[in-house]
Amino acid sequence: MAKGLPKRSENYSEWYNEIVKRAGLAENSAVRGCMVIKPYGYAIWEKMQRALDDMFKATGHENAYFPLFVPKSFLEKEEEHAEGFAKECAVVTHYRLKNNPDGKGLIVDPNAKLEEELIIRPTSEAVIWNTYKGWIQSWRDLPVLINQWCNVVRWEMRTRLFLRTTEFLWQEGHTAHATSEEAVEETEKMLGVYADFVENWMAVPVLKGTKTANERFAGAVDTLCIEGLMQDGKALQCGTSHFLGQNFAKSFDVKFVNKENQLEFAWATSWGVSTRLMGALIMAHSDDNGLVLPPKLAPIQVVIIPIYRSEEDLAAISEKVDPIINELKAAGISVKYDDSDNQRSGWKFAEYELRGVPVRLGLGMRDLEGGTIEVARRDTLSKETVPIDGVVVTVKTILEQMQTAVYQKALRFREENTHQIDTWEDFKVQIEKGGFIMAHWDGTSETEDKIKNETKATIRCIPIDAEEESGKCVYSGAPSNKRVVFARAY
Amino acid sequence: MAKGLPKRSENYSEWYNEIVKRAGLAENSAVRGCMVIKPYGYAIWEKMQRALDDMFKATGHENAYFPLFVPKSFLEKEEEHAEGFAKECAVVTHYRLKNNPDGKGLIVDPNAKLEEELIIRPTSEAVIWNTYKGWIQSWRDLPVLINQWCNVVRWEMRTRLFLRTTEFLWQEGHTAHATSEEAVEETEKMLGVYADFVENWMAVPVLKGTKTANERFAGAVDTLCIEGLMQDGKALQCGTSHFLGQNFAKSFDVKFVNKENQLEFAWATSWGVSTRLMGALIMAHSDDNGLVLPPKLAPIQVVIIPIYRSEEDLAAISEKVDPIINELKAAGISVKYDDSDNQRSGWKFAEYELRGVPVRLGLGMRDLEGGTIEVARRDTLSKETVPIDGVVVTVKTILEQMQTAVYQKALRFREENTHQIDTWEDFKVQIEKGGFIMAHWDGTSETEDKIKNETKATIRCIPIDAEEESGKCVYSGAPSNKRVVFARAY
Repeated sequence: MAKGLPKRSENYSEWYNEIVKRAGLAENSAVRGCMVIKPYGYAIWEKMQRALDDMFKATGHENAYFPLFVPKSFLEKEEEHAEGFAKECAVVTHYRLKNNPDGKGLIVDPNAKLEEELIIRPTSEAVIWNTYKGWIQSWRDLPVLINQWCNVVRWEMRTRLFLRTTEFLWQEGHTAHATSEEAVEETEKMLGVYADFVENWMAVPVLKGTKTANERFAGAVDTLCIEGLMQDGKALQCGTSHFLGQNFAKSFDVKFVNKENQLEFAWATSWGVSTRLMGALIMAHSDDNGLVLPPKLAPIQVVIIPIYRSEEDLAAISEKVDPIINELKAAGISVKYDDSDNQRSGWKFAEYELRGVPVRLGLGMRDLEGGTIEVARRDTLSKETVPIDGVVVTVKTILEQMQTAVYQKALRFREENTHQIDTWEDFKVQIEKGGFIMAHWDGTSETEDKIKNETKATIRCIPIDAEEESGKCVYSGAPSNKRVVFARAY
Repeated sequence: MAKGLPKRSENYSEWYNEIVKRAGLAENSAVRGCMVIKPYGYAIWEKMQRALDDMFKATGHENAYFPLFVPKSFLEKEEEHAEGFAKECAVVTHYRLKNNPDGKGLIVDPNAKLEEELIIRPTSEAVIWNTYKGWIQSWRDLPVLINQWCNVVRWEMRTRLFLRTTEFLWQEGHTAHATSEEAVEETEKMLGVYADFVENWMAVPVLKGTKTANERFAGAVDTLCIEGLMQDGKALQCGTSHFLGQNFAKSFDVKFVNKENQLEFAWATSWGVSTRLMGALIMAHSDDNGLVLPPKLAPIQVVIIPIYRSEEDLAAISEKVDPIINELKAAGISVKYDDSDNQRSGWKFAEYELRGVPVRLGLGMRDLEGGTIEVARRDTLSKETVPIDGVVVTVKTILEQMQTAVYQKALRFREENTHQIDTWEDFKVQIEKGGFIMAHWDGTSETEDKIKNETKATIRCIPIDAEEESGKCVYSGAPSNKRVVFARAY
């Protein structure tokens, strides 16, 4: 199966598309820009959801569900938000089809036109803040800490599986607070949760930072983000957390009586990650043989493949394998025993490599005699033959090591591809080679726009931990007191 | 809080609405017919989802995700399906809004009209079978056993929280098989899974049966269902499982090479349950004090309320409560300690009763002295004072007993409200009183329609375990060989 997978070095984009398809993660659907998330891809997404959901709950959040539809007038209420979101979206104008009186098929019933058009949510601030109006009266009702798992639609012109699709799955947190400080703290806390998840589960190192005004969420006072670096040297925004100030509270008239008995608008945050993370996961770690998954997110952590000629051989191997399966399961390790008879073991080896199964155990008749088993590790593609007794401990150790190793490899890659650049000439050369560029910037949108127009590089973030350092803007030469991160991005 | 909750006997419908709202389960949104599922309601739904999802996976199914949009032409392909589903639905006709050139606000951009309208999925057979065409070539690709958790939209004219909403959440299983027998077996197996879940988790007894042609899913060869009886004597369909024959395979040209090396259309099933189950859960068990939840689905299984006057009292009580909380958690029991100071304990008692928390523990200073604790049980509203040592074992026992007791009570209610009726006069009298009516029917749609028109009763199902019994149709007097189940229904 892995035969014919394009090489990263030759055609990164095709390599990505082919991994997504051949590893059974997703495919394009008949509906423009919408994907089908296939069972194996969805199983990874479910693991990501479960881990994130646990983290949200551990930080005091509850899930809820709000309507798919946003009345057009709601979108109009927060001006900047409307400007940013109300444009490319799916619009429901009618609520009935009828048989075509002039022939076959169905037509839209002109008598079933909605009085007010409904927009399929591109994000739910409007609907949710309209609801919060009824929930928040007193400081005792605050904070409201809610998250929603759902689908959203943004009418994208150019789409790519997972990275940019018209419909995508995500979670969106929407919180309301009594004070600005508390809301800012929440914004930062959730950025921390995202960074923790992306680094410790997805094994993708991220930079934490603030977006510039140009790149800010429409309607936010401040947008924090985490940015990862993919193997082709392009950045991928992995999650955002917004401090919304009182913008939405004002637009939807959400006031509460504070402890001083005065009416005040509530303070808001919102934060989200989406199925786009699947794109980051694939792009950050995979190789020319296929997917590489960090063990914590692998739907199948261990595959066991029998190597046999006769039914008797298979029976003997299976007898030896059974207790290993049970032991692995008891240790909380997901395992698949592939004794299917319609493919040769060589084909299976390649197939599970393509699918990124972290550990492969191979067991043949010679192993049975020698009391050994072959252990193959997906990230390093290394193999070793070990005693079958104690193999579960070996597997456990490898899985733990691999989770760290995959992260460390990605971190090394990022370090090697992060460059301090001080001149515009160097900038233009480096941006073609990819990677993160740490450079001084004069703080103006004008310069930011010019750099983007000339090089397609955007400011990914102003790092939270940026050191004070006086310098000159790489483009304009104007003074600057810290470096920001430039890159081309997905 | 419970003060003023309408009584079931006086206004069942209002009683239901008020429980849903006051227990914090859901509320109407600003979008016609769409609800907001509030955190407490959503937490129950999550428990239901988790249990069902585990059961689906244990029976070999995997989750996947398919697009929200169905192209209009897809809906037209299966004729009966189109007839049943393509009518009352949300139609997306445009993909962009723009600033109103003549004034304020946004208008639909007339230049962004879709070539083909997109329908928000009312169910996903069409989209999924169009996808399966690419997945199924050989008998080796079968069975395909897939489930999807998602939102769907059906433009309902009259809506009620959970029971009938324009948008609702559900799961839809869609399987493809090599033989008719295997598909029929799957249809029955999943009905069994639903019955198991509804009876053993939701504690609602159900009748398993087959729908008549009139009540069948549009596009199905056969529809199986489970039917529950609510406290007002009306039936509620809790889940359906459809044998779709080769209808969708033919409409979407899904053929495979069978073991005899011949091309054949695949055999299909689909099955679903929705947030409607929340309505069944509420209606089946709750009382005039509020929600009654079977312990297995209660987000909070035990609430502990301190009864105190001073801060010192509270500290002493909390010290005693801490180890109980830890022990309960260690036993896998969810517990909330409500030591909030803004409400009196009496208010809290009523509030958690309203929310259906199965067990309430109350602890005051006199209990501390005597080494006792008060245990209150939600379903029976009984209270007893027990030694504080060993209270965790007591709670565990009560939770187990309660799960069974709630089911038994609902079963008794159904038995008391199931009537064998043999004359049309008796039928008309009984149907006004509610309950399940077991009566003979001549098997014609004509009679079924007449009965429905005259009494609003429908045939809920032809029970799977119906005994052969010769009789005469309760309406037409024509011969019949078994009784079917009539009721008015939600």
